[in-house]
Amino acid sequence: MAKIVMKFGGTSVADLDRIRHAAGLVKREVDAGHHVAVTVSAMAGETNKLIAWTRELSERCDPGEYDAVLAAGEQVSAGLMAIALQAAGVPARSWLGWQVPVRTSGLHASARITHIEPSELNRRLAAGETAVVAGFQGVGPDGRITTIGRGGGDTSAVAVAAALKADRCDIYTDVDGVYTTDPRIVSKARRLEKVAYEEMLEMASLGAKVLQTRSVEIAMLHRVPVRVLSTFAPEAGGTLLCDEEDIAEKKPVTGIAYSRDEAKITLHRIPDRPGIAAAIFGPLADSGINIDMIVQNVSEDGRKTDLTFTVGRGDLAAALAVIEKAGPAIGFRDITSDKNVAKVSIVGIGMRAHPGVAQTMFRTLSEKGINIQVISTSEIKVSVLIAEEYVELAVRALHSAYEMETA
Amino acid sequence: MAKIVMKFGGTSVADLDRIRHAAGLVKREVDAGHHVAVTVSAMAGETNKLIAWTRELSERCDPGEYDAVLAAGEQVSAGLMAIALQAAGVPARSWLGWQVPVRTSGLHASARITHIEPSELNRRLAAGETAVVAGFQGVGPDGRITTIGRGGGDTSAVAVAAALKADRCDIYTDVDGVYTTDPRIVSKARRLEKVAYEEMLEMASLGAKVLQTRSVEIAMLHRVPVRVLSTFAPEAGGTLLCDEEDIAEKKPVTGIAYSRDEAKITLHRIPDRPGIAAAIFGPLADSGINIDMIVQNVSEDGRKTDLTFTVGRGDLAAALAVIEKAGPAIGFRDITSDKNVAKVSIVGIGMRAHPGVAQTMFRTLSEKGINIQVISTSEIKVSVLIAEEYVELAVRALHSAYEMETA
Repeated sequence: MAKIVMKFGGTSVADLDRIRHAAGLVKREVDAGHHVAVTVSAMAGETNKLIAWTRELSERCDPGEYDAVLAAGEQVSAGLMAIALQAAGVPARSWLGWQVPVRTSGLHASARITHIEPSELNRRLAAGETAVVAGFQGVGPDGRITTIGRGGGDTSAVAVAAALKADRCDIYTDVDGVYTTDPRIVSKARRLEKVAYEEMLEMASLGAKVLQTRSVEIAMLHRVPVRVLSTFAPEAGGTLLCDEEDIAEKKPVTGIAYSRDEAKITLHRIPDRPGIAAAIFGPLADSGINIDMIVQNVSEDGRKTDLTFTVGRGDLAAALAVIEKAGPAIGFRDITSDKNVAKVSIVGIGMRAHPGVAQTMFRTLSEKGINIQVISTSEIKVSVLIAEEYVELAVRALHSAYEMETA
Repeated sequence: MAKIVMKFGGTSVADLDRIRHAAGLVKREVDAGHHVAVTVSAMAGETNKLIAWTRELSERCDPGEYDAVLAAGEQVSAGLMAIALQAAGVPARSWLGWQVPVRTSGLHASARITHIEPSELNRRLAAGETAVVAGFQGVGPDGRITTIGRGGGDTSAVAVAAALKADRCDIYTDVDGVYTTDPRIVSKARRLEKVAYEEMLEMASLGAKVLQTRSVEIAMLHRVPVRVLSTFAPEAGGTLLCDEEDIAEKKPVTGIAYSRDEAKITLHRIPDRPGIAAAIFGPLADSGINIDMIVQNVSEDGRKTDLTFTVGRGDLAAALAVIEKAGPAIGFRDITSDKNVAKVSIVGIGMRAHPGVAQTMFRTLSEKGINIQVISTSEIKVSVLIAEEYVELAVRALHSAYEMETA
């Protein structure tokens, strides 16, 4: 007998038939003797509809009201799921964020979960009642409804699992697991049986959309075993997020991620002196703009150099405005920028034990005539910035070079 | 400067344009220096959609979950109204039932409001913030969301007004006031400037659909001046619910109400002995079936008599089943029932001072050849049960007989 959290995303509860189907999956676990807490997203399309309404009334509406409106979506699906479970003979009740309570920071529309009170839920689970927790929502310090940001459903599920000390958190979604790379680009992409938390964290951060980054962080922090599996074909088995030690064979590269949400900015002929980075990146940070990759050329004359960095594509205009404004304090000859760039990354804990992994990447891209504009690395990943038009070519070539189509 | 509660029903917040329009009406009061609490229903159609979903999953679903699902409708409209007010420059925030809190009994789907905590709302109103309270919902003793029954929006509004000790409660709806009778039947029906609480209570109970009975009870109990007026033509002035003393001229009949939701049951040849009424009506009450009119014939032989009573049309089948089951304890020869009946009522506080009012009713119906099947009276109303096909004829004839088309 285990304690399981089962998460159903928006497409898994998109209509009443799918809610019934999901309830059937829950019933199977309950019938097997497990204690189950379910977390649900809003029915697919509902959140977008509600967001559109708030936007139509006010382009920059009060985030507290935005949260009150949006949280209604998960309230409906949680209630409907509880009804479907009861109709299937499974004792159940819904729990809204403020009822659990799921306590969060007060930052509306992108709050962070600070504490989930487990005692009452655990008591009910032990008594055989399935808990249906509305995902994505919580309650702030002032007693108002908060939401934890677009797609926060995964994060809710893993946080509930961590709070309940669940044996497993099963994320039911519309794909059947985590793949070596995007199967839409590489038809031979292979589903991974297991992936280490650290790898998944890199892959999620680098553009893989299967799980939200924050949910992986929480899973890693609390060592929650997370399974990603398909609502529509759960028997396929999915992918298990686990500790590095639980993965027997470690290939050098586990996954290839890519992101088109990139833009490159280069400042030409800036002074090569201490404090210059702070003068540039301080104002950007103050404006809430995240910097990703940074490369500074070696200065030829010891006085002037070039600096290149990347930002999210949606932040490009704002970043250029901030830099222009800070221009006198920085001192540069001119700025150039490029939106037609993308980031391709290889990720794998096996890299640590396999020297030459990065070299294979550089050689492979070179053989295809793909120029590398910026490189950034960590212990378990190498990312390169390339022209966007080469993304598919690069991903396919790397997938083949690292022989990722076979386990 | 007054403290005003403004209630907008489902048709008044049916879409974003209407929400903006309603926000404009609120702004007008705020700009005039008043402190305003707004209560809103769900957007027209939302509640029916949510009910249909719960029914499709389970014909008799858990009323606690039903409430959680339905309350989402008012949550959305309250948030949207707050956003619309802010966009119009009116400081505002939404309040859900559990946030105020609006405390209710624990009887889900038809809870009663037991206490509305006014202190925080009053503090905010005094500080110039308009409160938008989600109608129809509250929180039960166990901390779960409750709803106060179909159409509980009026009740929420009047209860909030009573709790805040508001100077006025304005019910904005899709009609411009309370009429002498249904204008769809009598084209000369006249809007009433004022109507006494007692009269409105009778009219609401007897089938007039402008206001919910419970809301009139609360208004009467707390002496809340209630105005009913049109969202789309508020300048028409509406109808004021007030004390009897505040109405100068009292005509014998103020309003004519009718209800087609009637069914008649007759038990033939029951024993004419003490306790027989309890034997019949006890089991019906236990089954939650409301009895309206009752008439017992004088027994001819002192031993057997006939008993006729009415129930809501939807309760007829259940009532017959209960009676059949209780048959041996009651003892009757046979049962007959009739669904093709309707109740027509005249209401007026002036009746007390005008003898012969009932006689005019009976004579008028008689002249039209309409047979009266059952009569029931109170100090300020006379109701008759007639064949349903005569409803329009009866209402028109009575409206004319009491000269109600002129003030």
